[in-house]
Amino acid sequence: MSRIWNFSAGPAALPEVVLQQAKEELLDWRGIGAGIMEVNHRGRHFIEVIKETEADLRELLAIPEHYRTLFLQGGATLQFSAIPLNLLVEGRSADYLITGAWSKKAFTEAARLPLTGKIHLAANTEDKPAPAFTRLPEPENIVLDEKAAYLHLCGNETIDGVEIHDDAWLDGVLSSDVPIIADMSSNILSRPLDVARYGLIYAGAQKNIGPSGLTIVIIREDLCEGATGNAPAPISYRIQAENGSMLNTPATFAIYLAGLVFRWLKEQGGLARMAEINRAKAAKLYAAIDGSFYRNHVAPPCRSNMNVPFNLPTPELEAEFVRESEAAGFMGLIGHKSVGGIRASIYNAMPTEGVEALILFMADFMRRRG
Amino acid sequence: MSRIWNFSAGPAALPEVVLQQAKEELLDWRGIGAGIMEVNHRGRHFIEVIKETEADLRELLAIPEHYRTLFLQGGATLQFSAIPLNLLVEGRSADYLITGAWSKKAFTEAARLPLTGKIHLAANTEDKPAPAFTRLPEPENIVLDEKAAYLHLCGNETIDGVEIHDDAWLDGVLSSDVPIIADMSSNILSRPLDVARYGLIYAGAQKNIGPSGLTIVIIREDLCEGATGNAPAPISYRIQAENGSMLNTPATFAIYLAGLVFRWLKEQGGLARMAEINRAKAAKLYAAIDGSFYRNHVAPPCRSNMNVPFNLPTPELEAEFVRESEAAGFMGLIGHKSVGGIRASIYNAMPTEGVEALILFMADFMRRRG
Repeated sequence: MSRIWNFSAGPAALPEVVLQQAKEELLDWRGIGAGIMEVNHRGRHFIEVIKETEADLRELLAIPEHYRTLFLQGGATLQFSAIPLNLLVEGRSADYLITGAWSKKAFTEAARLPLTGKIHLAANTEDKPAPAFTRLPEPENIVLDEKAAYLHLCGNETIDGVEIHDDAWLDGVLSSDVPIIADMSSNILSRPLDVARYGLIYAGAQKNIGPSGLTIVIIREDLCEGATGNAPAPISYRIQAENGSMLNTPATFAIYLAGLVFRWLKEQGGLARMAEINRAKAAKLYAAIDGSFYRNHVAPPCRSNMNVPFNLPTPELEAEFVRESEAAGFMGLIGHKSVGGIRASIYNAMPTEGVEALILFMADFMRRRG
Repeated sequence: MSRIWNFSAGPAALPEVVLQQAKEELLDWRGIGAGIMEVNHRGRHFIEVIKETEADLRELLAIPEHYRTLFLQGGATLQFSAIPLNLLVEGRSADYLITGAWSKKAFTEAARLPLTGKIHLAANTEDKPAPAFTRLPEPENIVLDEKAAYLHLCGNETIDGVEIHDDAWLDGVLSSDVPIIADMSSNILSRPLDVARYGLIYAGAQKNIGPSGLTIVIIREDLCEGATGNAPAPISYRIQAENGSMLNTPATFAIYLAGLVFRWLKEQGGLARMAEINRAKAAKLYAAIDGSFYRNHVAPPCRSNMNVPFNLPTPELEAEFVRESEAAGFMGLIGHKSVGGIRASIYNAMPTEGVEALILFMADFMRRRG
């Protein structure tokens, strides 16, 4: 068998050595005579796994003591409901920045639910005609409700390729007591993070963490303890924190795989090293795009290091590009159905060689079709 | 390596041939050059998997055309909230039977949530002093609210070992327009099921289906379409049905493994054959318990074929039994922390030889310690 270059946006490629270890242990984890997915979540074997996994995550992200880490289910999309259900109370406002398709979905879901508080749009960068999302708002154009309970934003827009690279971006604009809530599904663990600047960070696992079915929530203790009683218990931050993420059976195998990924990240040199690699990979790819017949529409300062969407001169050429790339041993290069075009997702698990192979293919394709 | 006899209540043992296939395909599914957990859920590879999986489930359970099958996340515990959020409206009542720890949790969660309708306890078999749950109510003692929107029950109480063996049990007691909602997490796929007698059947996967992190919901079309807009979108039956269980990324690897288990069940001869095997396995184990110094407290007509809890004459002997059983190559025989004692979970994946080995061990232990 030969592994292909997998540029899928998520579920995405996992590091080969992680899968190799999972494969070796699938029927017999550490000699116990059963796979880790077959053991009770409250037994000593899985407790060992979840403790190691949590400790490694906290070490990688340097998560401060007064933050809790939760291992939940339901994807980032279930957090779109969980956040206002837990953190919005009557008389307060839930504030949203829209900078792409995912932050728009978070806002839309909060607005759809029957909630006791108010939903407020603090800024929206959507342009018409498309490409709709290509930039971040100027911080001074973000208008918070005076009763804002939080400001929700998306750290990296997986579909549109718009990323917030600087945790201090909103400094001095937001009053210090409005917690920032960030969906970091597609850029968590891609660089060091200043966790203390956020009230809550969440991420679906299926891009940079592990398989789908696991959601990680990092929440400041006071927000966790002050959560309302309105959320279903499995997505109640307070209840899950009190139960060590085990109110009910968590996604045990996904947590185990996340743990293997975390260990692999430590072996690579941690997140500072990953950030260097990721910046270099993305820079190469954007350089190949700029000054060619490929085109990325995002303003350079907020171009994503994880998801690189681009267009060709015509939709016909894009379809041909996808077909030929698959024949040439690449996978997942098709853009999201809502925006079309091409998208290369280059998460932690994508080696530099994969990006270089793609760049060669792109140059060759342009030579033949340009 | 040697596989042990794994009697865990869940996450539980999976069929060895299923794990073997998953192992072989982990890095390269059907020659595509990537594992199935690494591919986009909307791409053709995973669509093939989820379609096969759903078709096999429908075939195994002979699910009628007018029922939808959903592949969700969050475990049965998230369904405790999802059910009233989707199906309870103002002026109606959500009715519950309590026959064990899990149906009690379902009732407690519905009562805890801020809901628009009323929560009504239709019957409760809890006895004091313990053992608390040892029987089903007489159907004539079940008192429904006259505005009942549904009656919730638990098909098999995993902790207490109380099972409903007959889908027609409530016939003639319930007026035909009150849908029965059944938590079948621990006995789904253990026998043929008369799905049409239920409005909704749900199950966490980690006992008889696959790994934890996947929840299956089988819902009558009219209930699905009539669901309220109160539930978070990922647990809204209507929204998930409209999106083919893919409003957001589902637990793809868990669905793939469930599919392998379904195919294995078909190869075993389907659910009628599994029911014969399961009844025989359970009968042997209960026969070994009755007339020994082991004791099961459940009324014989509703003794579970899946979870067999039992006690020894003293807690000290129980602790010794657990210790010695582990040394002898058994796993997971400890009772749930809330009730203590011993519990042998003998789901589909536990072969008859495993039960026979346990019976031999029990006889030997009694001879030495009795």
